[in-house]
Amino acid sequence: MLSIGVDLGGTNLRAGIVDTVAGRVLSSARGPTYAEEGPPAVIERMAALINQAISEARLATDEIVAIGIGVPGLYDPATNAVRFLPNLPTTWLDVPLGREIELRVGRPTALVNDARAFVLAEATFGAGRGANIVIGLTLGTGIGGGIVIGGQIVLGHDGSAGEFGHHIIDLNGPRCGCGSRGCLEAHASGPAIATMGIKAVRQGRTTVLRDLIDGDLNRMTPEVIVRAAEMGDPVAREIMDEAGLYLGIGVANLVKIFSPDVVVIGGGVSQAGDWLLKSIRQVVSRHSSVTYLDRVSITLAALGGDAGIIGAALWATRVAQSRKRL
Amino acid sequence: MLSIGVDLGGTNLRAGIVDTVAGRVLSSARGPTYAEEGPPAVIERMAALINQAISEARLATDEIVAIGIGVPGLYDPATNAVRFLPNLPTTWLDVPLGREIELRVGRPTALVNDARAFVLAEATFGAGRGANIVIGLTLGTGIGGGIVIGGQIVLGHDGSAGEFGHHIIDLNGPRCGCGSRGCLEAHASGPAIATMGIKAVRQGRTTVLRDLIDGDLNRMTPEVIVRAAEMGDPVAREIMDEAGLYLGIGVANLVKIFSPDVVVIGGGVSQAGDWLLKSIRQVVSRHSSVTYLDRVSITLAALGGDAGIIGAALWATRVAQSRKRL
Repeated sequence: MLSIGVDLGGTNLRAGIVDTVAGRVLSSARGPTYAEEGPPAVIERMAALINQAISEARLATDEIVAIGIGVPGLYDPATNAVRFLPNLPTTWLDVPLGREIELRVGRPTALVNDARAFVLAEATFGAGRGANIVIGLTLGTGIGGGIVIGGQIVLGHDGSAGEFGHHIIDLNGPRCGCGSRGCLEAHASGPAIATMGIKAVRQGRTTVLRDLIDGDLNRMTPEVIVRAAEMGDPVAREIMDEAGLYLGIGVANLVKIFSPDVVVIGGGVSQAGDWLLKSIRQVVSRHSSVTYLDRVSITLAALGGDAGIIGAALWATRVAQSRKRL
Repeated sequence: MLSIGVDLGGTNLRAGIVDTVAGRVLSSARGPTYAEEGPPAVIERMAALINQAISEARLATDEIVAIGIGVPGLYDPATNAVRFLPNLPTTWLDVPLGREIELRVGRPTALVNDARAFVLAEATFGAGRGANIVIGLTLGTGIGGGIVIGGQIVLGHDGSAGEFGHHIIDLNGPRCGCGSRGCLEAHASGPAIATMGIKAVRQGRTTVLRDLIDGDLNRMTPEVIVRAAEMGDPVAREIMDEAGLYLGIGVANLVKIFSPDVVVIGGGVSQAGDWLLKSIRQVVSRHSSVTYLDRVSITLAALGGDAGIIGAALWATRVAQSRKRL
């Protein structure tokens, strides 16, 4: 059973041939997104990349069951059109991406939010394998998430179920890009963590962060702050603890809401995994007296960078199979 | 298909004969709980009440498929023992209630949290009928909740999934009974709303509340505050708006997490339903830019006081049927 998983990123496109039974990427092709050129050009490039992946794997197109595209934002599950991608140009409003790829490649195509694809893959083949309720969070430029119950992804009426990054943990907190205040994402996304580092340097605090960025505040990233924390820098440690507190409150909320078997943490910021995981677990155990925590596993993702592609391919395969049965 | 639903309250016990196909209570028997007498006495009274309900309905015991007991707290779904009931005496720790009733009445017995039972009933027969994802909240002394997806109640590994009252919306907020800070329940439960009224009177604010309670702060209840708000009292209206804001943030979080089809609000405080519903809807529409709200219905419960009993009976019936199939 081979399908294709595509990752539509703000910078890069990637298309992988996925064995959806084994949960492995057999081979893949990459290219730049050049999102500023607008949807028609990107769609052409994506279709070419998919065809390239198929021919490089010496497959015939009809050996591919389905194509799944993971998108970084909102889409319409009924039409497989992109609705809104917060980190891509606004020309990506209401783009019939699924239909256009299906026309160009000739295989059934389905969209899915990229964080939901990540969680589906981790729940099926990775850190949540065999568990009943798996909750996942992706920590990066934004904070995404997903819910898998009994092997099935919960999408909600518009595919937006799992938008954990925009649940409010601090109603008087900082303004979030979504228009609300005090969302988890406003406190603990990559940019929110970097902002804490910038603030510390601007306030003139004694920290190795200033040297690590050569005084250039634009170079402040979560990775730099993790490096400083590992060097023992107290300011960087304070920042990581604060991020861990916010993430811990967010995870504690999800634990109380779902009583899950497994919470999987992935995404770019999770490279700070060991730091964050320790804080998250501490905060969760302080704030979860209504749940029996001994059976809740909070853990890092297991599939690495392939999870999004595997999950998108798996989702599209299921959609194609359920259409066939009708 | 007849089963029995039991409601174990801090003050009253109620056992109803439930038609689990039609979703109706055919008849019921009531009595006091006298929880301070301890579990053995209450278990005897509950068993007697169940037998009374069966004989008053002129049924034979073996015409009853199962007995479901809705409990106001945490229980162990594997053993049907009570674990912890926050509003009952501490003698109710780890009580094998399900097994004791099963021994005394002779029918398969299952426990379920009372708020989860409420949501299962509303999703199956009430305000959420026919919907795919139904989220429910019970507003009272505490704030309970439940999740029904595709007709199935989501219980989590320990039956605690749906504890929405203890998700944190304000990490610097007031201390909650569970040990955390800023839980939804700490802001918007019945006692939290009454406390706002007491504070307003103590601060000497000009309000009709003082007269309505004859100066006796112990008589301040959410009902009194709703009455004052309906009389046009600005202080009472401010309190109801504040409660609506907190509840709205809580519901907005659940909308973002689940993208549900229906959110059902029930419980004692929901007698302030029209006031609260209006505020909740306003707050949700301000804070839910990541969900397409046009298809989310936020509504009051439809089954009235019977929902808990119907849901408990329905849950026990399903447990008994699935055991039979094994």
